[in-house]
Amino acid sequence: MTHFGREVLPYGVFSVGAGPRRVGVAVDDGVLDLAEALGPSWEVPSLNPFLAQGRARWTAVREQVRGLLDQPLVPASEVSLHLPFEVADYVDFYASEQHATNLGRMFRPDGDPLLPNWKHLPVGYHGRAGTVVVSGTDVRRPAGLRGAGPAYGPSEKLDVEVEVGFVVGVGSELGSPVSTAAFEEHVFGIVLLNDWSARDIQAYEYVPLGPFLGKSFATSISPWVVPLEALDRVPVPVQDPPVADYLQVSGDWGLDLRLELSLNGCVLSRPPFAGMYWTGPQLLAHLTANGASLRTGDLFASGTVSGDAVDERGSLIELTWNGRDPFAGRTFLEDGDEATITARTASGLPLGTVTGRIRPV
Amino acid sequence: MTHFGREVLPYGVFSVGAGPRRVGVAVDDGVLDLAEALGPSWEVPSLNPFLAQGRARWTAVREQVRGLLDQPLVPASEVSLHLPFEVADYVDFYASEQHATNLGRMFRPDGDPLLPNWKHLPVGYHGRAGTVVVSGTDVRRPAGLRGAGPAYGPSEKLDVEVEVGFVVGVGSELGSPVSTAAFEEHVFGIVLLNDWSARDIQAYEYVPLGPFLGKSFATSISPWVVPLEALDRVPVPVQDPPVADYLQVSGDWGLDLRLELSLNGCVLSRPPFAGMYWTGPQLLAHLTANGASLRTGDLFASGTVSGDAVDERGSLIELTWNGRDPFAGRTFLEDGDEATITARTASGLPLGTVTGRIRPV
Repeated sequence: MTHFGREVLPYGVFSVGAGPRRVGVAVDDGVLDLAEALGPSWEVPSLNPFLAQGRARWTAVREQVRGLLDQPLVPASEVSLHLPFEVADYVDFYASEQHATNLGRMFRPDGDPLLPNWKHLPVGYHGRAGTVVVSGTDVRRPAGLRGAGPAYGPSEKLDVEVEVGFVVGVGSELGSPVSTAAFEEHVFGIVLLNDWSARDIQAYEYVPLGPFLGKSFATSISPWVVPLEALDRVPVPVQDPPVADYLQVSGDWGLDLRLELSLNGCVLSRPPFAGMYWTGPQLLAHLTANGASLRTGDLFASGTVSGDAVDERGSLIELTWNGRDPFAGRTFLEDGDEATITARTASGLPLGTVTGRIRPV
Repeated sequence: MTHFGREVLPYGVFSVGAGPRRVGVAVDDGVLDLAEALGPSWEVPSLNPFLAQGRARWTAVREQVRGLLDQPLVPASEVSLHLPFEVADYVDFYASEQHATNLGRMFRPDGDPLLPNWKHLPVGYHGRAGTVVVSGTDVRRPAGLRGAGPAYGPSEKLDVEVEVGFVVGVGSELGSPVSTAAFEEHVFGIVLLNDWSARDIQAYEYVPLGPFLGKSFATSISPWVVPLEALDRVPVPVQDPPVADYLQVSGDWGLDLRLELSLNGCVLSRPPFAGMYWTGPQLLAHLTANGASLRTGDLFASGTVSGDAVDERGSLIELTWNGRDPFAGRTFLEDGDEATITARTASGLPLGTVTGRIRPV
């Protein structure tokens, strides 16, 4: 388990031995048991009831927890960590200009790397909520139809996507768009997210309705949900052309998260989240601009985070240019590989880990 | 409420006045209250607990209900109907060859109307589970970015899609594909479904990740879930080229549902479900072929049902050829319009209704 120190104070769901699931806060290298410290209403198997209570309550509990840091902690070695919340709907965006540009260059070498809509709205799609799994869950290599034939078989282009996921606490009414200004009322915090992707399955299936089986076999998230308050906010890149009114944001909503992707313990890349073109409040406002409602437990992710440098790319398809140029001796994931994403704040505070190992089909 | 007679015996969730939600079976033009007839375990706000119990239990309860048809019924006039189950994940397919061909002809007039993958796998995508609403819920016209500019505003091409949705009862394990032969173990029955679509929003946003806000504002389903046993099974069209092993089906899994689309009480079209290229068991096997798990309450829909004749088309974009040729005096939906889908078996038994009225943005 990550050694979180005493400033981040993320929330998760844990159990000890055969005991019941309960909510805890990660402190140093242990867990503060909120069911012990604050009462039996925290002996619940998900964060959803707490998430639903809203910003004022989130702030009050964070203050309370700050006063409890000298209570006894459950040692990390005794703790089993679980999926921290019940995922309602899962949406994945495509918010990194560098990532979208890299993919465009690879697959449309003769055209403009960005499609005409890309700078006007955050492109996104719905993923499968039921296959969001907690860090540490093995990922079975998916099989599917691949190639022009096509032939059915195990994916030969299994990839990672380094992402950040936003966790919705407070829902909204059907028919009422949520403004960028209401971001902090609705969004509790973030998780680290690996949107595992079978590039060969995806390439065959995705026209015209988008990714489906190439993504839906598993999405891993970190067990600890980091509150927005713990994050460093920075200015975002200028958006040119100017975006529509409903996508305008006031305030600095870039998040200076320093991500790191490792394979079998060796660092491959360090994607910088601060440079993402589209910000969290914009993703939220876009998601609801048509009147779609939010529910407690909705999860919306950034899409792959990639920076300008080669070793800031957040996927193997980019690092290896679709397998053409091996990177650190590798192209795509092999059976037994363990891929791990971690993150830190600008000042070096750890923000968690999401990891998973590939098992054969 | 539909007059269901005594053979179909669909399940729904209803309440009377301020009373609690409970499970009922539609009989003639009333509702058999299962909480009264079978005990308090049926006084629950969704079918999910029953759906999770599996095929043997579904059969046993259907037999029990057949013995209770002379019990007093709650009159339809006293009943409020609710969303019959909690939707876990919602997937929408594109399983009608005629529909896919029509769309291909409209948008790629110079190419092959079907894309290369279409006859090799059932193309599909994930939709938004949280905006699945019960029949009778008003649908607010969505706003979004449309046109090449693009400009933000109310959709000017609001459409219906006449569909059938399959309701999953029994879940499956992550990493274990479900075979076509296991269809009846997992799938309880069907609902009628209107996948409302904003064609202009969809056209601008959908490359490369598929439909998003053009669909996610609302999906309406019928309040009564019809068990598979009530449906007429017929042979399906020959699939050429032959499909991969995991998509092979034994038995006749065409479903002879006679759908009807009406606008403000006037019939527009009668899409025949029996001719769908891809069958329910194939949709299920494809959905899980990569190891994706199922949960109780998963909903997967057929995509728009269209037949060969013009007045067998299940969407306004097809009936009016993207608005070029008004049909029955109309192009797309106007504020105040009420669109209704009904269905019957080959022998004329009613299978329910899904309806919704457009309200202005």
